Amino acid sequence: MKQSPLHIRPATESDVADILRLVKELAEFEKLRDQVLADESAYLKYGFGAQPKFHALMAEWENTGAVGFALYFFNFSTFVGKPGLYLEDIYVLPAYRGKGIGKELLRELAAIALENDCGRMEWSVLDWNEDAIGFYKSFGAVLLHDWKICRLTSDKFNNLLK
Amino acid sequence: MKQSPLHIRPATESDVADILRLVKELAEFEKLRDQVLADESAYLKYGFGAQPKFHALMAEWENTGAVGFALYFFNFSTFVGKPGLYLEDIYVLPAYRGKGIGKELLRELAAIALENDCGRMEWSVLDWNEDAIGFYKSFGAVLLHDWKICRLTSDKFNNLLK
Repeated sequence: MKQSPLHIRPATESDVADILRLVKELAEFEKLRDQVLADESAYLKYGFGAQPKFHALMAEWENTGAVGFALYFFNFSTFVGKPGLYLEDIYVLPAYRGKGIGKELLRELAAIALENDCGRMEWSVLDWNEDAIGFYKSFGAVLLHDWKICRLTSDKFNNLLK
Repeated sequence: MKQSPLHIRPATESDVADILRLVKELAEFEKLRDQVLADESAYLKYGFGAQPKFHALMAEWENTGAVGFALYFFNFSTFVGKPGLYLEDIYVLPAYRGKGIGKELLRELAAIALENDCGRMEWSVLDWNEDAIGFYKSFGAVLLHDWKICRLTSDKFNNLLK
């Protein structure tokens, strides 16, 4: 029986360069490349310390290395009364799409969510990204059309603190 | 000098009944009361164990007790390379609005975000809640109109796992 060329595993400290490379490609695709200020040291500090702020899965392809990743953390729903898994980023290199890699990453995330008693998984999608939206709906995800995300960047914190 | 009748402090285990009462009132206001499945034991378990999944601030009014609260956790921005503070819920009882309680809760949250090196604060708002949106914009928050929240509830996890 042929072994799958895809291998999904939890990220380690030695993956931060690959994560940053994939985050930059994702940002490029989202037309948000100018918003990427992160460097490898930030991922090391916040992802792999005593109290990690995030977790990640790497998708590796035989003889190629990292071709995709998913980065997530746990949140909490006061309504459900359970933690949730929030998927911050999921990305597969264009040349490796159509091979089920995104679905395998999501399958692994659902298993992690189940293990951690999560009431739901959530993530955000750009409204023009119809391919992604169709994919997400295909396995039962719903879009919350009446909710808007509000953001206050740190340069505005002083508007509250003054 | 007169002391303020408002006192804001971190929640403790003894606040879970007040938190649940305020969450239910918030859900009523959001026309989502049927979505509240949580009980006090869920808040105790996930908010006050060894690795709490959330934190909360209580707003108390002199001789009245809890009249508002804010519930939050930390997330992570791969673009900014820093943690963020995500505000899951903020609520003030209708009879206590217009006294600056919401603003004081947000001021305290901004201080916590600053202490924890957060690059931003984020939260969600219902698109018909114009009073809240106007308030949030007044101190510099922006609405991310092109992002939609996707949700996969746990009853659908099997669509990925099968």
